[in-house]
Amino acid sequence: MQARRASPASRKKEYAMTHHSAEHRSQAMNDCILACQQCEATCLETINYCLGEGGEHADPQHITLMSACADICDTCARTMLRGAEVHTVVCNACAEVCRQCAASCERMGDDAEVKRCAEACRGCAEACAAM
Amino acid sequence: MQARRASPASRKKEYAMTHHSAEHRSQAMNDCILACQQCEATCLETINYCLGEGGEHADPQHITLMSACADICDTCARTMLRGAEVHTVVCNACAEVCRQCAASCERMGDDAEVKRCAEACRGCAEACAAM
Amino acid sequence: MQARRASPASRKKEYAMTHHSAEHRSQAMNDCILACQQCEATCLETINYCLGEGGEHADPQHITLMSACADICDTCARTMLRGAEVHTVVCNACAEVCRQCAASCERMGDDAEVKRCAEACRGCAEACAAM
Amino acid sequence: MQARRASPASRKKEYAMTHHSAEHRSQAMNDCILACQQCEATCLETINYCLGEGGEHADPQHITLMSACADICDTCARTMLRGAEVHTVVCNACAEVCRQCAASCERMGDDAEVKRCAEACRGCAEACAAM
Repeated sequence: MQARRASPASRKKEYAMTHHSAEHRSQAMNDCILACQQCEATCLETINYCLGEGGEHADPQHITLMSACADICDTCARTMLRGAEVHTVVCNACAEVCRQCAASCERMGDDAEVKRCAEACRGCAEACAAM
Repeated sequence: MQARRASPASRKKEYAMTHHSAEHRSQAMNDCILACQQCEATCLETINYCLGEGGEHADPQHITLMSACADICDTCARTMLRGAEVHTVVCNACAEVCRQCAASCERMGDDAEVKRCAEACRGCAEACAAM
Repeated sequence: MQARRASPASRKKEYAMTHHSAEHRSQAMNDCILACQQCEATCLETINYCLGEGGEHADPQHITLMSACADICDTCARTMLRGAEVHTVVCNACAEVCRQCAASCERMGDDAEVKRCAEACRGCAEACAAM
Repeated sequence: MQARRASPASRKKEYAMTHHSAEHRSQAMNDCILACQQCEATCLETINYCLGEGGEHADPQHITLMSACADICDTCARTMLRGAEVHTVVCNACAEVCRQCAASCERMGDDAEVKRCAEACRGCAEACAAM
């Protein structure tokens, strides 16, 4: 449990320390890039998990929403890594898609894997909304 | 064999006629998917052209904006092709990025290649705004 | 105005006629870009269809393979549109992924939507192998 | 310097400890996913840096190769995160693109930012070749 909480913060710190580019970005943007990367990865892993579980886990709208969420998170992280000023537009959209994806995961009840995905989406939505 | 060699024009026609999925989407959405695909392709080609020209064509902010535009257009088309209801959110963001990219191209003056990119961006912005 | 409303078929024709970049690429490469774009689109649509059908259509390995196929087709088309010389490497990989995806579709029997996906994959595999 | 060496290993460990999906993948695959994510991010940042520097840094072939490298690294990480068995095909292609991108960076001489990109590409090439 502790490990789960510790990881984003400590990973981000290393990132900020070693990357020249990261030093030239705000802490909020470095946090947001990491949140997008983690949300994309978690959605892709959770799609795989949900397809294997079947039943309501494999509901087409749920799988499709997680897929769309992974794609916009990817584009959002890339836009910031490119240093594009238009990132705020993409972040706004990403925040809303992540919110909808989190809500879809949360409707699925008490499954640890799906909850992990909801948490990644909530974290990404918050980080994107702060940009 | 003949069909396979057929021109892009005739293939596109088949595409429109044979796609079960396309028939279940509105004409506006099919137009928007095509506009996104063409805008992405045109931006990627124009980046290549502008890097080769150098000078103001290779202005970092201009190249970066076209790159970000290609990425969001890609994600936008994919979101509609997936049948994701959240596509409206992505279309809104895509419309705004395309508008900014078109404006950046239009500031570049009377270059046919860059004007073609501006037109693709304007077309995509309109199609996305109509979703 | 009329031109803007024109059908996908006529737009595709314009596309082939007006692109400076397209004129500087071989016909084989233009065909390959189109094949990749169509294969990506068809895979994304077929994922949506198969999830809705459920049962063997929604087999996790099948959905996952179509998803991976859509991604590599996307990257492959982009690499050629960028004018990157390294495209041959990506085309080789894309051809093999498309072959595996076609085979997975073909194992699914006599479903018109899935057959359409198999055909798009076979076409893309051939076009990529020719690069 | 130490921090730079330490980061991938410790990040990967956290990743492996907290992710259910990561626990079901080999250590080599978790390493490879991280290497692809870092190589993609570094290429995107270095494109931005090189465009700003101009001159030989903004050589069209170099920018294009880094762009293509970022795209295949992205697809490669996604393919593994999806759990797709076809990942070996994508990893092979990614290894070769990364090798070529590293070589292009190394030809650029003694620039710390470009060297960082070369290192990320070499690391990703090795990790992908081991899959």
